Amino acid sequence: MNVTVWNENVAETNQVKEVLDVHPNGIHNTVREIVEELGEDVHVTTATLQEENLGLTDEVLDHTDVLIWWAHCAHDQVPDELVAKIHQRVLSGMGLILLHSAHYSKLLKQILGTSGDLYWRDETYERMFCVNPTHPIAEGIPECIELGTEECYAEFFDIPKPDDVIFISWFDIGEVFRSGCTWTRGFGKIFYFQPGHETNHSYQNPYVRKIIQNACRWACPTAHKIREGAPHIDVTREEQRAQQAEKE
Amino acid sequence: MNVTVWNENVAETNQVKEVLDVHPNGIHNTVREIVEELGEDVHVTTATLQEENLGLTDEVLDHTDVLIWWAHCAHDQVPDELVAKIHQRVLSGMGLILLHSAHYSKLLKQILGTSGDLYWRDETYERMFCVNPTHPIAEGIPECIELGTEECYAEFFDIPKPDDVIFISWFDIGEVFRSGCTWTRGFGKIFYFQPGHETNHSYQNPYVRKIIQNACRWACPTAHKIREGAPHIDVTREEQRAQQAEKE
Amino acid sequence: MNVTVWNENVAETNQVKEVLDVHPNGIHNTVREIVEELGEDVHVTTATLQEENLGLTDEVLDHTDVLIWWAHCAHDQVPDELVAKIHQRVLSGMGLILLHSAHYSKLLKQILGTSGDLYWRDETYERMFCVNPTHPIAEGIPECIELGTEECYAEFFDIPKPDDVIFISWFDIGEVFRSGCTWTRGFGKIFYFQPGHETNHSYQNPYVRKIIQNACRWACPTAHKIREGAPHIDVTREEQRAQQAEKE
Amino acid sequence: MNVTVWNENVAETNQVKEVLDVHPNGIHNTVREIVEELGEDVHVTTATLQEENLGLTDEVLDHTDVLIWWAHCAHDQVPDELVAKIHQRVLSGMGLILLHSAHYSKLLKQILGTSGDLYWRDETYERMFCVNPTHPIAEGIPECIELGTEECYAEFFDIPKPDDVIFISWFDIGEVFRSGCTWTRGFGKIFYFQPGHETNHSYQNPYVRKIIQNACRWACPTAHKIREGAPHIDVTREEQRAQQAEKE
Repeated sequence: MNVTVWNENVAETNQVKEVLDVHPNGIHNTVREIVEELGEDVHVTTATLQEENLGLTDEVLDHTDVLIWWAHCAHDQVPDELVAKIHQRVLSGMGLILLHSAHYSKLLKQILGTSGDLYWRDETYERMFCVNPTHPIAEGIPECIELGTEECYAEFFDIPKPDDVIFISWFDIGEVFRSGCTWTRGFGKIFYFQPGHETNHSYQNPYVRKIIQNACRWACPTAHKIREGAPHIDVTREEQRAQQAEKE
Repeated sequence: MNVTVWNENVAETNQVKEVLDVHPNGIHNTVREIVEELGEDVHVTTATLQEENLGLTDEVLDHTDVLIWWAHCAHDQVPDELVAKIHQRVLSGMGLILLHSAHYSKLLKQILGTSGDLYWRDETYERMFCVNPTHPIAEGIPECIELGTEECYAEFFDIPKPDDVIFISWFDIGEVFRSGCTWTRGFGKIFYFQPGHETNHSYQNPYVRKIIQNACRWACPTAHKIREGAPHIDVTREEQRAQQAEKE
Repeated sequence: MNVTVWNENVAETNQVKEVLDVHPNGIHNTVREIVEELGEDVHVTTATLQEENLGLTDEVLDHTDVLIWWAHCAHDQVPDELVAKIHQRVLSGMGLILLHSAHYSKLLKQILGTSGDLYWRDETYERMFCVNPTHPIAEGIPECIELGTEECYAEFFDIPKPDDVIFISWFDIGEVFRSGCTWTRGFGKIFYFQPGHETNHSYQNPYVRKIIQNACRWACPTAHKIREGAPHIDVTREEQRAQQAEKE
Repeated sequence: MNVTVWNENVAETNQVKEVLDVHPNGIHNTVREIVEELGEDVHVTTATLQEENLGLTDEVLDHTDVLIWWAHCAHDQVPDELVAKIHQRVLSGMGLILLHSAHYSKLLKQILGTSGDLYWRDETYERMFCVNPTHPIAEGIPECIELGTEECYAEFFDIPKPDDVIFISWFDIGEVFRSGCTWTRGFGKIFYFQPGHETNHSYQNPYVRKIIQNACRWACPTAHKIREGAPHIDVTREEQRAQQAEKE
């Protein structure tokens, strides 16, 4: 499995101390380390906004089974052509994990077709409940997780009805949020996961790490899926029965 | 539309002051008044555990489009035969609205096939969020409702995946709950709605009243639905095309 | 309720006899007549590709509760700006009914985020089954409908998982198709409905007419839905309880 | 993974030649061989109606991760107590695969809460379409499978809305059927799969075999899931923040 972790890498590039304190090598490397814990069959690379082609050349995408996307303030700097290209690859089977503020990314808005709008509150305590314990992404996750301080995203969250709502979060400031949701589009699987504000420690939480790891396994395409393209054989019922009779 | 409101009516029969203070004529009459506000085309009757046949004779059920069920401590006193009878009528199209502690009723457990299990906490502040604003049950309901003090039910709630989760509640004590959920079974529609502890004032909240009213309209069967029972006409494609040619 | 019926009107403009035989005043007027049967509270207008702004000025859209879209070969002639505008209005609550070949329209692809791809076969017999009898769009519809000759669309149909699959079609040529599907996006409801090839008679079928009529009622926004925009009141639990105590 | 294959084994016991021609060692052994192809980590046992306790003692069930159920004419001979016991184990996480005529089994009716009703036609040609290509049960399965002669089950199929409809079948006699559907109940996963009439050869079809194998992997519980049972820690926001501050 090849996983590519993309990060806008803006706060890190700007040497924002509060972010580097938590992610000394950038959020992309924090996430890379999480995914690498999956084992030796997993190959992880990173890509950032500052690289040529944002680090996402055709060759990189050709070798990506699952793309992880962390973004916050630089959504507009992602070119429409790249968004269209990633969208097509998701429809063809590439998995996509959208982290935290990716709710406002061009990617989410284009692929899901909604605004990704939500309410925002600062400085809160988050507790995350698992409401879909049989889902592969919830494997090994307890009934609730104490996240501690996180950025609060609150309902109404303008997303299409998820295929599965796996996590619902409680914020002490008086809010709830569907914080872990899945969709499929074409042959691709998509997971949105809310924790991960750049100055908080959620990505050090062992259960959050496990969820991201589970999500990679879940989103990985299981087969080379393409449209078979040929029209179905048109046989009359009499021909079908004759064929069947021969077989038996 | 004929609506029947069933209430176990145990606290009221036992003259529990805290309950009678809120529901001087019993919870069934509180709910009856809510439904009657829908207008003159709605006919509401009540039935209780203490009546013969629990007030739910075949004749009553024959004239019931939507059954509302409030129960808390007397689930075991509802005979299995009556549960089976109501189950069959739901499959045939009767709407069913399960209020509050009905999560542990024989009805919910038999019709949905799960335990209805949840966690319980006393004395909390509840705020209810609408996460499905286009659903008919959410018509006229704002993004969130301040319920004030309510009995806390908390996740994990052991229910089948709802067709729609309309409301998610926040409890100040640190819990979330899918507090308004729908399912269909056969030709019948089912709505579970968590507010309504017997000593709290949720049924005086105008939005809670509107939700119950919307749910009655939504759950009312729209047609006399029965299995048509006859096998489909078996025509060969040649016959079909000949028939079609004649029509054109 | 204000319904606007849009039709590309290409075959009609080109005086294609086989189409004018079935739709002497164009498909848009055939559909207009279907919707007008709903009664006097419904106001229907038509718009076509050949009109200025495709007949869909801001003023027209401002007065549209439900937009019906019939298109086949001229998808590319619909400007991206108009598609974006309609998309926004759907997110704000406008209902959208996508008929027949609209599976390949820019509208469907942009709003749903998938390719709308499917297989195509000519000249077949279609029988349509209702697999969701409690849905409002299925009200008054029998278990199956004999459509006769229709253009065959076949699985795999590349759409997001529908909120509800209401109809599944059987084609004598050996194909099945999810021929009636719903989604919500933002505050808007969307219905895709496959029948209606320009040279076939499905829109004269009384059940097809009823389905389109039901879909208009279902897709009509039930309220002026906007984001309330204000942050939720942040109260501590102690304050909340004090407020509650005062109320009681 | 421990899989137990249960078969009513009635036709086989009665030495019905047409069945023994296809399943010389009984349907349970045909299915056992299919599951055994999964590899050495899978241990498969069989159980039948004719054995003491129907072969399903507590000890057997204690060691069953996935139960496969084939039944047709002897549903009434399965004791209610055993049905209740299996139901409880499914809620606790045991996977359940219901094959063919199990639509009328007490198990399906009790766990799903609907009648399982459908229409029946004899002697038809079945073609099965995959409409959910990203589902683990569809891994390695093409867009459609030619099953040949099978017993026809037809819509309307009275089941709760599936979590996923994976397969839809076309029958030459003019019918469609949701032939592969999933649900979860509690911590258990359930798959209903229509092919497998006792005198037909579907279980020799390599894709049908693959689907049953995939379903075993999918339905296998991924963890020892139990309710954690303890109330959540109740901390005030001030305490929570103090705890968090200490951590950071």
